[in-house]
Amino acid sequence: MSVVKKILDGYDSDNAGTLSNIYKLLMHGKLAGTGKLVILPVDQGFEHGPTRSFAPNEKGYDPDYHFEFAIEAGLNAYAAPLGFLEAGSRKFAGQIPLILKLNNSDLLMESSNPCPAVTGSVKDALRLGCCAIGFTIYPGSTARNTMYEELRELAFEAKSYGLAVVVWSYPRGSELSKEGETAIDIAAYAAQIAAQLGAHIIKVKLPTDFIEKDDNAKMIKKYNIPIKTQADRVRYVVKSAFNGKRIVIFSGGASKDLESLYKEIEAIHEGGGFGSIIGRNTFQRPKEDALEMLNKIISIYKS
Amino acid sequence: MSVVKKILDGYDSDNAGTLSNIYKLLMHGKLAGTGKLVILPVDQGFEHGPTRSFAPNEKGYDPDYHFEFAIEAGLNAYAAPLGFLEAGSRKFAGQIPLILKLNNSDLLMESSNPCPAVTGSVKDALRLGCCAIGFTIYPGSTARNTMYEELRELAFEAKSYGLAVVVWSYPRGSELSKEGETAIDIAAYAAQIAAQLGAHIIKVKLPTDFIEKDDNAKMIKKYNIPIKTQADRVRYVVKSAFNGKRIVIFSGGASKDLESLYKEIEAIHEGGGFGSIIGRNTFQRPKEDALEMLNKIISIYKS
Amino acid sequence: MSVVKKILDGYDSDNAGTLSNIYKLLMHGKLAGTGKLVILPVDQGFEHGPTRSFAPNEKGYDPDYHFEFAIEAGLNAYAAPLGFLEAGSRKFAGQIPLILKLNNSDLLMESSNPCPAVTGSVKDALRLGCCAIGFTIYPGSTARNTMYEELRELAFEAKSYGLAVVVWSYPRGSELSKEGETAIDIAAYAAQIAAQLGAHIIKVKLPTDFIEKDDNAKMIKKYNIPIKTQADRVRYVVKSAFNGKRIVIFSGGASKDLESLYKEIEAIHEGGGFGSIIGRNTFQRPKEDALEMLNKIISIYKS
Amino acid sequence: MSVVKKILDGYDSDNAGTLSNIYKLLMHGKLAGTGKLVILPVDQGFEHGPTRSFAPNEKGYDPDYHFEFAIEAGLNAYAAPLGFLEAGSRKFAGQIPLILKLNNSDLLMESSNPCPAVTGSVKDALRLGCCAIGFTIYPGSTARNTMYEELRELAFEAKSYGLAVVVWSYPRGSELSKEGETAIDIAAYAAQIAAQLGAHIIKVKLPTDFIEKDDNAKMIKKYNIPIKTQADRVRYVVKSAFNGKRIVIFSGGASKDLESLYKEIEAIHEGGGFGSIIGRNTFQRPKEDALEMLNKIISIYKS
Amino acid sequence: MSVVKKILDGYDSDNAGTLSNIYKLLMHGKLAGTGKLVILPVDQGFEHGPTRSFAPNEKGYDPDYHFEFAIEAGLNAYAAPLGFLEAGSRKFAGQIPLILKLNNSDLLMESSNPCPAVTGSVKDALRLGCCAIGFTIYPGSTARNTMYEELRELAFEAKSYGLAVVVWSYPRGSELSKEGETAIDIAAYAAQIAAQLGAHIIKVKLPTDFIEKDDNAKMIKKYNIPIKTQADRVRYVVKSAFNGKRIVIFSGGASKDLESLYKEIEAIHEGGGFGSIIGRNTFQRPKEDALEMLNKIISIYKS
Repeated sequence: MSVVKKILDGYDSDNAGTLSNIYKLLMHGKLAGTGKLVILPVDQGFEHGPTRSFAPNEKGYDPDYHFEFAIEAGLNAYAAPLGFLEAGSRKFAGQIPLILKLNNSDLLMESSNPCPAVTGSVKDALRLGCCAIGFTIYPGSTARNTMYEELRELAFEAKSYGLAVVVWSYPRGSELSKEGETAIDIAAYAAQIAAQLGAHIIKVKLPTDFIEKDDNAKMIKKYNIPIKTQADRVRYVVKSAFNGKRIVIFSGGASKDLESLYKEIEAIHEGGGFGSIIGRNTFQRPKEDALEMLNKIISIYKS
Repeated sequence: MSVVKKILDGYDSDNAGTLSNIYKLLMHGKLAGTGKLVILPVDQGFEHGPTRSFAPNEKGYDPDYHFEFAIEAGLNAYAAPLGFLEAGSRKFAGQIPLILKLNNSDLLMESSNPCPAVTGSVKDALRLGCCAIGFTIYPGSTARNTMYEELRELAFEAKSYGLAVVVWSYPRGSELSKEGETAIDIAAYAAQIAAQLGAHIIKVKLPTDFIEKDDNAKMIKKYNIPIKTQADRVRYVVKSAFNGKRIVIFSGGASKDLESLYKEIEAIHEGGGFGSIIGRNTFQRPKEDALEMLNKIISIYKS
Repeated sequence: MSVVKKILDGYDSDNAGTLSNIYKLLMHGKLAGTGKLVILPVDQGFEHGPTRSFAPNEKGYDPDYHFEFAIEAGLNAYAAPLGFLEAGSRKFAGQIPLILKLNNSDLLMESSNPCPAVTGSVKDALRLGCCAIGFTIYPGSTARNTMYEELRELAFEAKSYGLAVVVWSYPRGSELSKEGETAIDIAAYAAQIAAQLGAHIIKVKLPTDFIEKDDNAKMIKKYNIPIKTQADRVRYVVKSAFNGKRIVIFSGGASKDLESLYKEIEAIHEGGGFGSIIGRNTFQRPKEDALEMLNKIISIYKS
Repeated sequence: MSVVKKILDGYDSDNAGTLSNIYKLLMHGKLAGTGKLVILPVDQGFEHGPTRSFAPNEKGYDPDYHFEFAIEAGLNAYAAPLGFLEAGSRKFAGQIPLILKLNNSDLLMESSNPCPAVTGSVKDALRLGCCAIGFTIYPGSTARNTMYEELRELAFEAKSYGLAVVVWSYPRGSELSKEGETAIDIAAYAAQIAAQLGAHIIKVKLPTDFIEKDDNAKMIKKYNIPIKTQADRVRYVVKSAFNGKRIVIFSGGASKDLESLYKEIEAIHEGGGFGSIIGRNTFQRPKEDALEMLNKIISIYKS
Repeated sequence: MSVVKKILDGYDSDNAGTLSNIYKLLMHGKLAGTGKLVILPVDQGFEHGPTRSFAPNEKGYDPDYHFEFAIEAGLNAYAAPLGFLEAGSRKFAGQIPLILKLNNSDLLMESSNPCPAVTGSVKDALRLGCCAIGFTIYPGSTARNTMYEELRELAFEAKSYGLAVVVWSYPRGSELSKEGETAIDIAAYAAQIAAQLGAHIIKVKLPTDFIEKDDNAKMIKKYNIPIKTQADRVRYVVKSAFNGKRIVIFSGGASKDLESLYKEIEAIHEGGGFGSIIGRNTFQRPKEDALEMLNKIISIYKS
């Protein structure tokens, strides 16, 4: 358990309530005590629509399924928007740590400078028994100030009630290239911004070896920052989040073949990442396949 | 009564006050205890103007008429904007469950990206003895964040007072095609968004078999989602609202011949829809005709 | 007094405080108990500037004059912006019911989509001893949501303190034709919107027989709605305000010859209108002329 | 002292606290009891920058200087932004009535439709021992609603604490001509707007005989309103501010030769103006010259 | 210690809490009691990204490093955004005065009229044991009103809790030339604005001898304001901040050779500046080099 204690030391200024909730996330499920997390997020019904999200495995239309699945898979937590958590938080009370996702976008009106709607509140998180709030920021969007300032208020309120704060940090906006959204320098910057805004847990996408900004490319070259392997890049993003003093977890994006996925997990593990947040790759597969996949992933993180 | 009990189970996390008000809606009128609802909405005076709305049956200019009609017809509830409810809520107190519609648009200034004005408050609903608030969202509008965030605040406040939340979810906006507004994939998405935003009761338009988004068309084909008949489509929209754990009711739009209307009701019933919200088709007919029509509709839902 | 009682029945859901204030308006001055009202509004100093407003009768520069005039003429109430009421409400306390006009525009910056500034508060109305607040909306303006939502908040607050709510409803905006601003269908719509927003007393302009919207023209023709005479049109607007359950009063616009004005008053009376709000036609005449004119108007309403 | 009593009668609806503060302004300094005021405003450091403002008399860089100067000159009050008052309000506590200027613009970003930033609060005015707040509005600016509504809130709060409200009313905006900014009809309108918004003391620029609006020109001609001499125009502006029931003071603008300045003061005095607000003409001269000039001005107002 | 007492006299109107915190800043570290300050700011991780900021000295990725460094170097204070202070404020509690930077920009979306996001609150500053808040304004930006008004609110709240207010005043915006951003007249104006907004400590960039505005150039020439040497310009900026009654400190910008840097420090000292705020020049060097550099700088300020 010393690894968990060491992680908590990085949150030294937080109150006992927040520390307890971070502890709860780290001590639940099959990875309890390892300092690693695997979290199930299901906001795709809102973000991509029910058809694209749940048609591949129609059990996913039912909010109960995701609670049951996260519990059975022994994950650390389940994250979802207001409606999905309202539907099951009482039935499954106490069986799985919950993260209420407080903002969401949908695909019916897209913008090159996205700004999600705030769809829940800290008091909703409290009445639903959650241990954390979740919030998405899009650094690079012209609407970034709106998101940063919403997060500031919600995070302040959440911390005052002893909740933890999980930030999805996804660079996106009209001045960023498409490749730049997952560039290593931008991923590191996104992690830094989330950390400076007071996030306890930061979720970023796995970065590529592309470098968006010339200034950063010069620095990476001059100071020989290793970014060649996926593990290198994970290590650099974790370093960019207060030298590893903030929990950084990674998402894998759209469904892909399992071998590629396991390799990514190994790279996250090797690079000192704190774990994964895996949505579509789980709930879009038949339950038994998904459980098997997660067992494999968990075993990698335990290795 | 077990059907009502089963419906209430889907709202398990709600407080006793809200459950009592959903129960009240389901246990009032001729459909009491069937798990079905027929609701009278009269916001057309605001939305389309008095002339277009009430000229066909001039009794409709009088707010009392709609209370009396909904009571006499044995409907589950009557929904209207502030003024109409203020005019009769004391006189008819307790005789029919009321839903205060909290936002409204008018036709004097139309926009391709609509955003209604908030025209009432949760405290108005309380002082007028309502059991629920009503709110319209237009997913697809550039102003969607405004609406979603207004709904979030109003729904949170309503729930804190034990009221229920009814959401009219009408896709509309500059990136949607005209046909897309009632496309099956978009209707399912609209129901999902309302459910994720915390609606207890969701009102959508009857969907066509048009599919707006290619990504959805591929899914519907690949996974053989039945959308051919009206009943199929109703079933899919209900499934998209948390696998039937949220009450979804359907509107029929502009007045039409009765046979078409009854066929629609049969399809809603067959597809597992929870009922209808019928405005213009009722109050624009002579009272006796309208009562006869509603008796027929109710008998379909009871069959 | 039974006519006053009958009018109050239309406001059945309001609290005793608000009913008392509507009663006060109906029971003051020479028209007390008739169910008719003549109100003096003096916001032209703000709206059109002092020169255009008060040069024709220079006593009008002085705020005392308007209090004295309304009292001497035996009118039902005096309505003005903050400054004018602050200047005399203590000196003339209790002698004439006051309406604090809570929003105002000026001519120094005009817009085709007008939106007045909120220039006073409900608490100002209370400290100045007013019985009602007044508020202007411009249905048809792109800024209508701002106005409707300001009105919602102010009206809610006013009612909570037992004040009455008077709404000036003037269609205006970039999608309306100039003629449409006083079209019969639009005037009826404007009255309906004000009523749905919770107004107790609605002020509209006398409508012409022009019809702005084709949909409305069809209805008026199909259902033989009489709109040929001024009295017809007054009757239709009153009907459009909850079938006569809301007090609707009419303004006459710019100064004109007296015979035309009296004919308008007769038409308002014949059509079941509740009275007049007359500004420039009074305070821009010599006091004795204005008093004589108002006596004539009052005698018409008493006939 | 009867002149002061008569002025206070115009503010009859105000509470004792506000009346005391207006009284304090009228009873301080060399003009005490005359009903006239000379006020020192020093916001040019913010509005025009320190170099343009204070280079001509470098003592002006020091906030103490302005306190000392206003006290020594025997003025009625000293008005300045937050920083300048914070710097000396304790040291000179009680020695000179203070007006906290609550909004300010700077020259680093100019707009044809100006809107100052709100730079202080009513509670700042209280903690600094001020007797009034000051606020600038720009009638004619597209941002006028913002300013009017800020003023409404601040003035309401100030009055609730017994403070007085001083409004700088400067017509400016894209629809006004440059000459129109000081036109007699516009100056009268600006005074009227400030009065209607609830100002106790109104500051306008000395108007020219230019007339901006044709409608006003017709009225001025038709009703023979005298505007030929400066005294005529002062008289008309004072009349436009509630027939002299509001204190109206005048500013003289940029520095000029003393003879022109004294003539202006004589015209203000002759026209029934209540005094002057003189900034640059004082603090940009050597102290002794400025004191001598003010003595001369005060002697004119006493004559 | 009389120099500190004299400085505090300039803040005479502030409460004992704020005076104590200014005192604390002036009495901490190697410059304690000299009236001079050297402050370490580390917001570059947010503002420029972690790669550009911390790659040159990788210890800087770790938030602990900056606390330890500021303590070891004997600086007066350490300023940083929320995340960095949350990471160490408990561990290093009491060892170094802290300034919580309350707004921040990032480089992922740049604008010619910048406006930082508010990223922390006054209550965060209190719970983290800070003695001051920090805030950046960009005079010249079209968004200046937003920043000035945010500062007004935050400064008011901070002062009410006895905190001090540090303002970074950086002229920037579409109407300023690039050279104008550091022009002597603009730097003086920026210092004046910050002072008028109620700042206790003002940070500006070292100005050049460029003059942006013709009006100012005329004044500088006419009144022989010395601006030729760096010391002259420092003296003029300090004079423009209430004749030296506000603490003005200077930043040096990007890293440069040490000799140039020491010359700048000497000029600041000679010109009566109150000290330096040095970020990149410290944490981007090896620790020992940076400590040596700061010892040299401190010795200059002590000379």
